[in-house]
Amino acid sequence: MATEQKETVLVTGGAGYVGSHTVITLLEGNYNVVVIDNFANGNEECIHRIETLTKSKVPCYHVDLLNKREVLDVFKKHPDISVVIHFAALKAVGESVAKPLLYYRVNVLGTINLIEAMCESGVTKIIFSSSATVYGDPKYLPMDEKHPVGNCTSPYAKTKHFVEEILFDICRIKPEWSAVVLRYFNPVGAHSSGIIGEDPQGVPNNLTPYVSQVAIGKRQELMVYGDDYDTHDGTGVRDYLHITDLARGHIAAMKKVKTTNGFNAYNLGTGKGSSVLDVVKAFEKACGKKINYKIVPRRDGDVATMCADPRKAEAELGWTAIHTLDDMCRDLWNWQTKNPNGFKIINGVKH
Amino acid sequence: MATEQKETVLVTGGAGYVGSHTVITLLEGNYNVVVIDNFANGNEECIHRIETLTKSKVPCYHVDLLNKREVLDVFKKHPDISVVIHFAALKAVGESVAKPLLYYRVNVLGTINLIEAMCESGVTKIIFSSSATVYGDPKYLPMDEKHPVGNCTSPYAKTKHFVEEILFDICRIKPEWSAVVLRYFNPVGAHSSGIIGEDPQGVPNNLTPYVSQVAIGKRQELMVYGDDYDTHDGTGVRDYLHITDLARGHIAAMKKVKTTNGFNAYNLGTGKGSSVLDVVKAFEKACGKKINYKIVPRRDGDVATMCADPRKAEAELGWTAIHTLDDMCRDLWNWQTKNPNGFKIINGVKH
Repeated sequence: MATEQKETVLVTGGAGYVGSHTVITLLEGNYNVVVIDNFANGNEECIHRIETLTKSKVPCYHVDLLNKREVLDVFKKHPDISVVIHFAALKAVGESVAKPLLYYRVNVLGTINLIEAMCESGVTKIIFSSSATVYGDPKYLPMDEKHPVGNCTSPYAKTKHFVEEILFDICRIKPEWSAVVLRYFNPVGAHSSGIIGEDPQGVPNNLTPYVSQVAIGKRQELMVYGDDYDTHDGTGVRDYLHITDLARGHIAAMKKVKTTNGFNAYNLGTGKGSSVLDVVKAFEKACGKKINYKIVPRRDGDVATMCADPRKAEAELGWTAIHTLDDMCRDLWNWQTKNPNGFKIINGVKH
Repeated sequence: MATEQKETVLVTGGAGYVGSHTVITLLEGNYNVVVIDNFANGNEECIHRIETLTKSKVPCYHVDLLNKREVLDVFKKHPDISVVIHFAALKAVGESVAKPLLYYRVNVLGTINLIEAMCESGVTKIIFSSSATVYGDPKYLPMDEKHPVGNCTSPYAKTKHFVEEILFDICRIKPEWSAVVLRYFNPVGAHSSGIIGEDPQGVPNNLTPYVSQVAIGKRQELMVYGDDYDTHDGTGVRDYLHITDLARGHIAAMKKVKTTNGFNAYNLGTGKGSSVLDVVKAFEKACGKKINYKIVPRRDGDVATMCADPRKAEAELGWTAIHTLDDMCRDLWNWQTKNPNGFKIINGVKH
């Protein structure tokens, strides 16, 4: 009997937050993984830790998608790559408003280069890391995949929408192509081992890393932007999902992308919303400390509630989120306490 | 009394169809003009003819917007450039479906390079050659600028929409910037001199050049795609406007772009629709010949009617189209008969 050939997946941005958790899940699922990352947000140390944890070898290349030649070289070096999972992108909404051209260049041109390199290398399957921000302000809740897209409120969101459209166009003319687009709601938490997690550069853009840094004493207090929204406690409600659930969503998508052609988009969310204060309370329980916070005025552009209808992913990918908000906070706190400085090594000691 | 300084306008794609007619109109309006073109669709001969007709010198550089260094060099060589009119783009809807990545690279990345070069050169005013195709299928008629955008039916249209969005984002963060976006309906005809006009490469994508080539004997007959639409004679209705009127729209936009900041979009159209058979009849009158045509089934993606509401351009730019469909056909036929091979020089003789 012939040994079954392991499939090889190229993961762009594999040293980043969602990328690294997906790499672990792929390795656990018996896939070979090749990573490219420009280490703008990702960290090489993260890949070393994954190799130690999983006792696997992960070829990892310092490659920028803006350099198409380098991308092509990776495909040439690994002719067994059959699927690409594409995370590599800039991701800070506020920064994208200040530097739109940078975001369009990196996220859109980077993807055009990647798709061209795939075409030239005969790879026709891609899973794309998209975002619920493609929906813009919700016209109804929970939001399913039929919700209109494109009324985006930031250049970041527009880059995700534009890339979805480009993938749609490619699938239309290349019948052998398959693109699975995963629209993430709010991924939080960390791997249960505590060896990898979110390592924001500078002031965290997202709620839970900020809360976590308040808990560990790096930030003084949390600003809660508005407590007069039409929600159960007046603070903004979002659909948080555990990073490990999100990573599992990509494994579910692997099966889909290999067996279907064309363009398919799925929400990845729990379908349950939690308010800012729900998160604060859950985090206090996880860390056993009080989180200082202050109510400040609403921010421009924030909406009261964002919440996924995840039923399409359940029906077609067989995926549902299984972790609770308490799980997310527990695992984030575990990562935070084991790595108070993220992946940074201070005085030769991993903190 | 000091002599008034003439303003200098950089025209990208200035050797193309709309670009060249706008260059003439700018020169007649006492502007200095600098042209860049990669001559993919444009023709250098066209610039020579404009120089002869207008007795002006038009510096013209063979520059591709994908080469940002070359674009920057032109700004350096002409530090007096104060406004950019940006035509350079690929424009064949059908080709864009077949080669979406090419269209995204050339039209979107080309524009990102141009905007970056403008930023680095301190130029903050741009007029962008957009298209009514950003509206997608009409939700109501006539279409004004409040009509939803983004439900585009081709990669070509999406590139126009994406560039509009990028210009919007730039204007949001740079208060000194001004972008006037002109959404063209169906430009046809030629300069009344007959020295320049539309010179399609290969089979014409648009109706009137095709009709004109049938009239001159280059094509056997016109295919009329569907005669069972809900229009006055069953054939598709479009809002045709004379290329000289369209060129004048850019001069009107020059005043706007210099005196207002922010992002502003305008329809350029007549507000009057003509059917395919209306065009055929008008062209028969202009050329004095019978146009052979054949009714064939509808094409996928065609709509019954597209028609502009041009009142915003009238109110804010002081612009209206003045030429009739008969004028358009007369001038197109004049160009066609004087230049049966377009700008091509055959055996040393300009045809």
